[in-house]
Amino acid sequence: MPTVTNALSVPAAGAPFEAVRIERRDLRDDDVRIDIAYAGICHSDIHTVRDEWGAAHYPIVTGHEIAGTVSAVGEGVTAIAVGDRVGVGCLVDSCGECGPCKDGQEMFCTKPAVGTYNSRDYHGEWTAGGYSQQIVVTERMVVRIPDALSLDVAAPLLCAGITTYSPLKRWGAGPGVKVAVVGVGGLGHMGVKIAAALGAQVTTISRTDAKAADAMALGATSHLATSDPGAVVAARGSFDLILNTVSAPLDMEAYLRMLRPNGALVNVGLPSEPYVLHPFSVIGGNKVFTGSQIGGIAQTQEMLDFCAAHGIGATVEVLDASDTAAVDAAYDRVVAGDVRYRVVIDTATIPG
Amino acid sequence: MPTVTNALSVPAAGAPFEAVRIERRDLRDDDVRIDIAYAGICHSDIHTVRDEWGAAHYPIVTGHEIAGTVSAVGEGVTAIAVGDRVGVGCLVDSCGECGPCKDGQEMFCTKPAVGTYNSRDYHGEWTAGGYSQQIVVTERMVVRIPDALSLDVAAPLLCAGITTYSPLKRWGAGPGVKVAVVGVGGLGHMGVKIAAALGAQVTTISRTDAKAADAMALGATSHLATSDPGAVVAARGSFDLILNTVSAPLDMEAYLRMLRPNGALVNVGLPSEPYVLHPFSVIGGNKVFTGSQIGGIAQTQEMLDFCAAHGIGATVEVLDASDTAAVDAAYDRVVAGDVRYRVVIDTATIPG
Repeated sequence: MPTVTNALSVPAAGAPFEAVRIERRDLRDDDVRIDIAYAGICHSDIHTVRDEWGAAHYPIVTGHEIAGTVSAVGEGVTAIAVGDRVGVGCLVDSCGECGPCKDGQEMFCTKPAVGTYNSRDYHGEWTAGGYSQQIVVTERMVVRIPDALSLDVAAPLLCAGITTYSPLKRWGAGPGVKVAVVGVGGLGHMGVKIAAALGAQVTTISRTDAKAADAMALGATSHLATSDPGAVVAARGSFDLILNTVSAPLDMEAYLRMLRPNGALVNVGLPSEPYVLHPFSVIGGNKVFTGSQIGGIAQTQEMLDFCAAHGIGATVEVLDASDTAAVDAAYDRVVAGDVRYRVVIDTATIPG
Repeated sequence: MPTVTNALSVPAAGAPFEAVRIERRDLRDDDVRIDIAYAGICHSDIHTVRDEWGAAHYPIVTGHEIAGTVSAVGEGVTAIAVGDRVGVGCLVDSCGECGPCKDGQEMFCTKPAVGTYNSRDYHGEWTAGGYSQQIVVTERMVVRIPDALSLDVAAPLLCAGITTYSPLKRWGAGPGVKVAVVGVGGLGHMGVKIAAALGAQVTTISRTDAKAADAMALGATSHLATSDPGAVVAARGSFDLILNTVSAPLDMEAYLRMLRPNGALVNVGLPSEPYVLHPFSVIGGNKVFTGSQIGGIAQTQEMLDFCAAHGIGATVEVLDASDTAAVDAAYDRVVAGDVRYRVVIDTATIPG
């Protein structure tokens, strides 16, 4: 008998959330059922339900920052048991057999991978995400949340955490490395915490000084406001690595100029406008312009263990969703940059 | 008493070459005087004398692919002796004290470095390049040409060789790595030879199949003609590394699609138009878009030693410059892509 669970769903582009009851599939041999405790609100959720990226399939239950406790396991599940504290991120399946899957990069599965919501799974069903009280997922896509992390601050690590951890690791953030994090929001605040914990010297960059004090509290040692042209010029050639978490269009040339020779500018925000780059901005100084998309399952586990060891969780506001309009209001606040720094839905409050 | 030497000079943008006599400075303690045997014609020379990059200072003696024999040394020179076979590339001085200089990346000297021609040196004099019979250069910027390399095929290594070697090394060209080289010209043919010698599997990419047979002879194992849309689609996700040597604008999105996850597209050609990149083309697949600018002195020596060990020189046409119009004609042929694959001026033929 399928599980029936409370969820928050958007029936059409521009419509508000409504409380619904959705079915979760019977457990297959390799499935685990998770009683969700918290689901983070990611900017991608908003782009999707508002159909800003196209390809939205309504109704949509968003949420790919999921933390909870296992309440049932399929007959073939061996590594996870009822009662385990676990998380699910942006993916709920991948083929497991292609080159990227074998390399632990399930997000680049060639089949391709199945997103946690708004994706058709390998059985032809549309996936529904974490703004609900239960979810059923193959154990291969489930990670363990260490006891040192409470579930509310752990939930956003499943997307915002791995999205910043993965490029910081790839591009060498560590002692003696000067890292700039552009944007101090949901992604950016995690980038600061993780880069600082990795031992890097962190500068935050945003338009104004409004978040400068917060940035220092998160672990930055300096803040640069781009509204001060002198500060921007003074920062030329300063950074080994710039992590751009902003989804609005920015002047990429200005950021490339802030890099040292051989430095890297990594984009994890997704503006809808194209970047315009003059050839000499990357050739002069051998500069790297790149992007990064979440991370694989094994690295997500590594990130959670790292965060637990360093006492790092997201800085969250816990949202009571018993009035579903509160979720719509939270979306508006995320878009306005008015959240410090991640909203997580207390899924127990979702009405039945 | 300064050295007076025959040279080829362009007096103004659009003017033809003329034979002139130029002075080379008295040897300072750290200087060596080189009797130039061959000077390669690089596309940058053409952009400069035609003032296509701006900032040309006439008259200009171009040439930064210089191979010859030492004919005199300053009193403080210890590492180089009269009779040594040596080369000079794109730089004739750097501060030697800044971070990049200390890291062996003199091309990124913060003072900045002094170009071999059309640059003002640290004494306020305009530099004049290799289309001449003698040049005086500080020994720090002089590299040794191994005996296994004849000077004519060695000259182009000083720019085309290091420009392709440096990014191929940085981005891991080697056994098991699939490398594509876009453009089979002066830079591209060196890219193919060096990548193949590093053990990579090399595909050449150009508009047509015209150079396919040549590409195989240079060391490629396959050729892709972009005039065949089916071949372009079939190449999606194929390459670990793409080295783009073309200075004309190309659709960078198409090349990014040909990369495997985490692959790198390295630009060494310098088109005058900006690149336009959609954010997801680098974020999806964690793809790297970058460029590379020549290489440091130590790496240039490493490249020459590598080429000598692998029997690699440039494929050259030796040009008799006794009629200076032959140089103008060679420029037109380079621009037309009609040279296989590098013209080197036999400087002994430069009229007095």
